[in-house]
Amino acid sequence: MVSPNDRRHELLPSSVDAKTPHRTIWVDEAGFLSIIDQTHLPHALVCVRLIGLEAVCEAIRTMRVRGAGLIGVTAAYGMWQAALEAPVTTAGRFLAFMREAGRQLCRTRPTASTLAWAVKRQIHAIEDHVSGGRPPLDISELLREQAHRLADEDVAACKAIGQHGMRLLQALAAHKAPHEPLNILTHCNAGALAFVEHGSALAPIYAAFEAGMSIHVWVDETRPRNQGASLTAWELVMRRIPHTLIADNAGGHLMQHKQVDAVIVGADCVTRCGDVANKIGTYLKALAAKDTAVPFYVAFPASTFNMQLTEGLTSIPIEERSPEEIRTVAGIDTEGSMRTVRLCPAASPARNWGFDVTPARLITALITEQGVCEPNEASIAKAHQCWCH
Amino acid sequence: MVSPNDRRHELLPSSVDAKTPHRTIWVDEAGFLSIIDQTHLPHALVCVRLIGLEAVCEAIRTMRVRGAGLIGVTAAYGMWQAALEAPVTTAGRFLAFMREAGRQLCRTRPTASTLAWAVKRQIHAIEDHVSGGRPPLDISELLREQAHRLADEDVAACKAIGQHGMRLLQALAAHKAPHEPLNILTHCNAGALAFVEHGSALAPIYAAFEAGMSIHVWVDETRPRNQGASLTAWELVMRRIPHTLIADNAGGHLMQHKQVDAVIVGADCVTRCGDVANKIGTYLKALAAKDTAVPFYVAFPASTFNMQLTEGLTSIPIEERSPEEIRTVAGIDTEGSMRTVRLCPAASPARNWGFDVTPARLITALITEQGVCEPNEASIAKAHQCWCH
Repeated sequence: MVSPNDRRHELLPSSVDAKTPHRTIWVDEAGFLSIIDQTHLPHALVCVRLIGLEAVCEAIRTMRVRGAGLIGVTAAYGMWQAALEAPVTTAGRFLAFMREAGRQLCRTRPTASTLAWAVKRQIHAIEDHVSGGRPPLDISELLREQAHRLADEDVAACKAIGQHGMRLLQALAAHKAPHEPLNILTHCNAGALAFVEHGSALAPIYAAFEAGMSIHVWVDETRPRNQGASLTAWELVMRRIPHTLIADNAGGHLMQHKQVDAVIVGADCVTRCGDVANKIGTYLKALAAKDTAVPFYVAFPASTFNMQLTEGLTSIPIEERSPEEIRTVAGIDTEGSMRTVRLCPAASPARNWGFDVTPARLITALITEQGVCEPNEASIAKAHQCWCH
Repeated sequence: MVSPNDRRHELLPSSVDAKTPHRTIWVDEAGFLSIIDQTHLPHALVCVRLIGLEAVCEAIRTMRVRGAGLIGVTAAYGMWQAALEAPVTTAGRFLAFMREAGRQLCRTRPTASTLAWAVKRQIHAIEDHVSGGRPPLDISELLREQAHRLADEDVAACKAIGQHGMRLLQALAAHKAPHEPLNILTHCNAGALAFVEHGSALAPIYAAFEAGMSIHVWVDETRPRNQGASLTAWELVMRRIPHTLIADNAGGHLMQHKQVDAVIVGADCVTRCGDVANKIGTYLKALAAKDTAVPFYVAFPASTFNMQLTEGLTSIPIEERSPEEIRTVAGIDTEGSMRTVRLCPAASPARNWGFDVTPARLITALITEQGVCEPNEASIAKAHQCWCH
């Protein structure tokens, strides 16, 4: 068996070259599931193969892959990997094996709704196939093809989000002096690395920058995992987009001093009423935006809606992660080695929630591949219906 | 000449023992100005001597001493150190030399109002002395004695803040079940280490805990300098007070879920209208407290008032510090050595404001040594008048 590490190749993250993957997840020429291992960024670009369900679960759990869209697509490919490991047995037992694989994938990150949604789509495909009475073994090919389709849908959705969001940014830029850049604040990473390509919150920024708009991005470092400092900053360096890294604490101060024209964030789960679960700290930025009259946009593919949920604060499960992510920080030392340092006394305990819920009342608009919609039940129902058809 | 490091002694921060200093700044038995060098906490308790004005300025600038009250008292001792270095000359030239020393001290941390206030008190003492026609040289003793008095006043003020604040906490605890701890969230460090003893925001917690109240403290890590993770957590470990370290991003989520009974923070400058400059990120916590109906208290000695200032957002100077404090984090590695690691791409710039302004409308009450007062002009004028007399 091939080990997950045998095709690891490190690329210096100084520029995008021919070896830089276009996508965050892909099947390589030898037929293996491959990812960018994001735990090495921004210090090295490392690609690894994921072989088998457990490797996929581990990659999601330890955030080698992360981000609302990407973990959904990864889970879809994970179901393909599970099917390859399924025992040759009856259709009923195969289905039970795959449902258990699906539950295992869903447990890795409980808040993200696209993960459960992607697993459900794969389970439906299996059920359709099994009820058609075909032998269970060739189903793995069907699951791989459907995972490809989900990946392609993710790319198309993010591209459309970029176009819709760009028009909002153009409208804001129209109120500024021609030489002044539009200042956009973002929290965490909802960029290309959080999806298959393009991203959600960063897609409008990429589209606007490519269209020649003058843009500057305030990047929240996003403790505890620093996805802003390590991933969003890396994406912006790669694309040569002007940006400035700030502490998560600084966004309110910047908004008070008119240094932010808009906030755009991603979403891990959006209820039928427009309440949004996103990276912990998003709620604080939404409050500051409301208090200072800065537009606050949330960008995500429509697959992020969970239409079963109404009030987000009481219904969205919030993942709690290891306290060590709070007590320690990982980075590169002066000799270029990755190191983890502890910040607090050895005796101090910590708690670590991955997400918080921003109530719809604090959100200016939602941006999906269907267009821009208001964060209320009627507008969301319409956008969701368009997406389902 | 004695070097600042010659009396450095390291104490393991595992418990308070006979060698643990009672104060954060003192004159040792040999007559030298001594401090706890807070840049080593929580990993080691290191005491150093500060000899000469430049050593004092360096200690304030690099945050060996920090915190609203402590930098005021340190600046007062700094004026004593400057007087020891003054050339023997005319009274007029001596005064000019000391005024320049005062300006040098004020430039080290521009936001803290007690720093400028303490320097002004020393300048007044010099002016009084000089106008009395006495020779300039023996003034250093007078400045040292007045610095002692300011230190003693700081201790007394913080003790009184503890008593006034404790009564607020007792009132909140009365609404809880007897076995349930009162959950208090604090940002940055406004504890004993930020003053000479006791602290401001933590003083009510210490008083209540000593009085037998069941208390639990949510400690914001407070990026970028992590004063919560390193200093507040250390103080709480020393006093065996239950606490939990959290990311700065998590406070809003905790308030939404009724896990916070009150927020108490310190202040670096308070205007005549009750607008408060405090560690960057305070404004975001005040917004969340308002949105979730959690009481938000600001505790500080009355010397923190700047009665010349009205609207805080436009009038309080906000210190900007090195971007390296954002791009990197310092902590202890697995071998026990202090190390600095970089979090972001080498090419990413950063900006780093030390404070933000919380408008009075978001504050429940101010706690000073004069008692509890409302954050409005009339109440503040009364509290300030009592303090002046």
